[in-house]
Amino acid sequence: MAAANYYEAARSTNVSPEDAALIARRKKVLGPAYRLFYENPVHIVRGEGVWLYGPHGEAYLDVYNNVACVGHSNPHVVDAIARQAAILNTHTRYLTEGVLAYAERLLATFPQDLSQVMFACTGSEANDLAVRVAKAYTGGTGFIVTSLAYHGTTEAIATMSPSLGQHVKLNEHVRTVPAPDTYRTAPEAISKVFAAHVRAALADMKANGIKPAALLADMLFTSDGVYPDPKGFLAEAVAAVREAGGILIADEVQSGFARSGDAMWGFLRHGLDPELVTMGKPMGNGHPISAMVGRPGVVDAFARTSRYFNTFAGNPVSCAAGMAVLDVLTEQKLLENARDVGAYMKAGIAGLAEKHAVIGDVRGAGLFLGVELVNDRKTKEPASEVCTRVVNGLREKRVLISSTGPDVNILKIRPPLVFSRANADQFLSALDDVLSTL
Amino acid sequence: MAAANYYEAARSTNVSPEDAALIARRKKVLGPAYRLFYENPVHIVRGEGVWLYGPHGEAYLDVYNNVACVGHSNPHVVDAIARQAAILNTHTRYLTEGVLAYAERLLATFPQDLSQVMFACTGSEANDLAVRVAKAYTGGTGFIVTSLAYHGTTEAIATMSPSLGQHVKLNEHVRTVPAPDTYRTAPEAISKVFAAHVRAALADMKANGIKPAALLADMLFTSDGVYPDPKGFLAEAVAAVREAGGILIADEVQSGFARSGDAMWGFLRHGLDPELVTMGKPMGNGHPISAMVGRPGVVDAFARTSRYFNTFAGNPVSCAAGMAVLDVLTEQKLLENARDVGAYMKAGIAGLAEKHAVIGDVRGAGLFLGVELVNDRKTKEPASEVCTRVVNGLREKRVLISSTGPDVNILKIRPPLVFSRANADQFLSALDDVLSTL
Repeated sequence: MAAANYYEAARSTNVSPEDAALIARRKKVLGPAYRLFYENPVHIVRGEGVWLYGPHGEAYLDVYNNVACVGHSNPHVVDAIARQAAILNTHTRYLTEGVLAYAERLLATFPQDLSQVMFACTGSEANDLAVRVAKAYTGGTGFIVTSLAYHGTTEAIATMSPSLGQHVKLNEHVRTVPAPDTYRTAPEAISKVFAAHVRAALADMKANGIKPAALLADMLFTSDGVYPDPKGFLAEAVAAVREAGGILIADEVQSGFARSGDAMWGFLRHGLDPELVTMGKPMGNGHPISAMVGRPGVVDAFARTSRYFNTFAGNPVSCAAGMAVLDVLTEQKLLENARDVGAYMKAGIAGLAEKHAVIGDVRGAGLFLGVELVNDRKTKEPASEVCTRVVNGLREKRVLISSTGPDVNILKIRPPLVFSRANADQFLSALDDVLSTL
Repeated sequence: MAAANYYEAARSTNVSPEDAALIARRKKVLGPAYRLFYENPVHIVRGEGVWLYGPHGEAYLDVYNNVACVGHSNPHVVDAIARQAAILNTHTRYLTEGVLAYAERLLATFPQDLSQVMFACTGSEANDLAVRVAKAYTGGTGFIVTSLAYHGTTEAIATMSPSLGQHVKLNEHVRTVPAPDTYRTAPEAISKVFAAHVRAALADMKANGIKPAALLADMLFTSDGVYPDPKGFLAEAVAAVREAGGILIADEVQSGFARSGDAMWGFLRHGLDPELVTMGKPMGNGHPISAMVGRPGVVDAFARTSRYFNTFAGNPVSCAAGMAVLDVLTEQKLLENARDVGAYMKAGIAGLAEKHAVIGDVRGAGLFLGVELVNDRKTKEPASEVCTRVVNGLREKRVLISSTGPDVNILKIRPPLVFSRANADQFLSALDDVLSTL
């Protein structure tokens, strides 16, 4: 695998003494498993809207952080957290109104049959819970994920997250299928090809005596390289999984909360009807909150054998944060903004492709875009090294994005949903500059 | 297993119409896996210090919630959260000073060799991470836990948490040992008996070709029934685990942050030197933050094969909450308070035992006490039904505790650390009253 967007002391020459001191402190107290972004890591002291600021007032345009969906330090969310924290923060074994009001509000964004929610604190926990529930419901143990999926960091979910690298062994009941790569497979064939891979995985499970539990899929296939299209292509694969006794877990940690610009949830833009849906990252604009939403019957089998309690999850402060995010999403029409500004950016990048041959493909939905860089448009040879230079070149221009994909040659672009056309212009201009100096 | 302290519609007769409506909403939107405490659930709208308040101003004395360690809605913690949330909330792939300052402050409460910390959001996630790290470090897969241990709710950790009930299957590489029951085994024999059980578990692993990874133990054995003594009894068992190639993971989710009154961490009062330590609940006074602390060499093997990232963990707001908790713990001398008020309550309950024969044993450390109720002091037959009546009787007197143990006959008492002697007097008086009317 090519080098991901991480700091390595050996590659870096331009780290300030101030930042070098912080890096040394990090290494000492946080240990060796943490990673920093960029050859020259970014030191942040403040955030506001789509801007992050360094210690000397340097303003970075944030074109990467989907967690701060309604903007960094959004005052409505900050107020909601501050107000509720001063009143009450307790757990779900007492009756509290806030968790119910938020659950009802959140569920109102779903189709009627997805009518129950269980709260957790991280996307990893939500997926971990969904896996437990799926096993109980289906009686199966087999899971299908895409070949560079990332679903979380708990032990169970790490074994279903091949993007963590070859050293993290997959669970032996997990099968991977290639992501729906519309750049290398004709979009009109994607549905059949993806379904064929899923059927092959199911057949392999059967041959090994493994009963399928679920297809667990990021609705935008972001860690695989951002593959949102064509809309609806997943239906055939999902039907095959159901026929074999499994269910669909729609992982909306990346694709949910209006990100795609087409719908509040990624599964809706594909016209799917998942049994379970998981969500996290933008849910509290950075406050640790996540959830699993499910059809009532699906949770019953789990509930018969196991109670569920998560100390911090569903507490009144987390729910106030979640509620405030939904307020802003609605009031500021951020779904519409994601659609509009996302399409504007996509068109802008497509325009740059006329000038810069290294841009092989521009894809995405709403404000989640992937830009695949190639050394040759015919062979589509991944331009991994160029990708690293672009990401770091943009960072030097104080524009923050990152990279993804099996060859780390895909620009990952997912700004806060309050990103404007003017912000997009600034990004496009910086990208043009960096590509021009390659 | 006897009925735990949960609401069941069939057993309840005195739920107000207002609360019944909330319960109906809960059932509809949160589904069947959630549980409420008490026959007549408690509806809470506000918290302050050691008090929780109902919708009509009813004041409940909180003798149960260890999460709100520095008191409900502690203004110093609320201010810290509000202030930082308005400035910056981002992740650890950028350089931010707050996570380092907090890491350094937290690590300063540990012996020098426990010098690295990795952040997560829940105790479950911290234990899940510790299990992954322990496996990588030792090359083993076997874990020893006590027979009614609770370590968390992720799939991996649920299989090491027999307290979740017989329906949640243990991992086949997990072995259980009986808790160090000082009520039924002479305290002076506990060390040998516990070590013998651990050796037997290790021998059984060996016979099954399982290489040991760790002894994972709550330093107060709270879900087993609260067994903190005698101090130091674990040393022999830990030596046996190490001899077999395993390590000690000290689970301080319950016992940490001064709870025991003897030391900041439970392992310190036992004179132990764990390779890994996990913590959560009181760390942010309710804000979702947890951590794993380890010796540097222990994390290296994990780091060689896996990067670590947890989107929300170690963010500046969580770290500000954690820092504020440490401020209050120190400034208000809450370790000393836990020792003083804990001893005062323990003596007070022991006094009540002279009057109430149902009190079989009073044990605990600092502000974590277990009171074992028995039908007969000679046979020590668990008084499970009486325990349920006591817990619910106290709730009717607006005093909140819960129950624990294999027979659910042990009162679980763990108030916020700001609990005073006057609060203790009120609790003791209420307990006396309830026991007098049995």
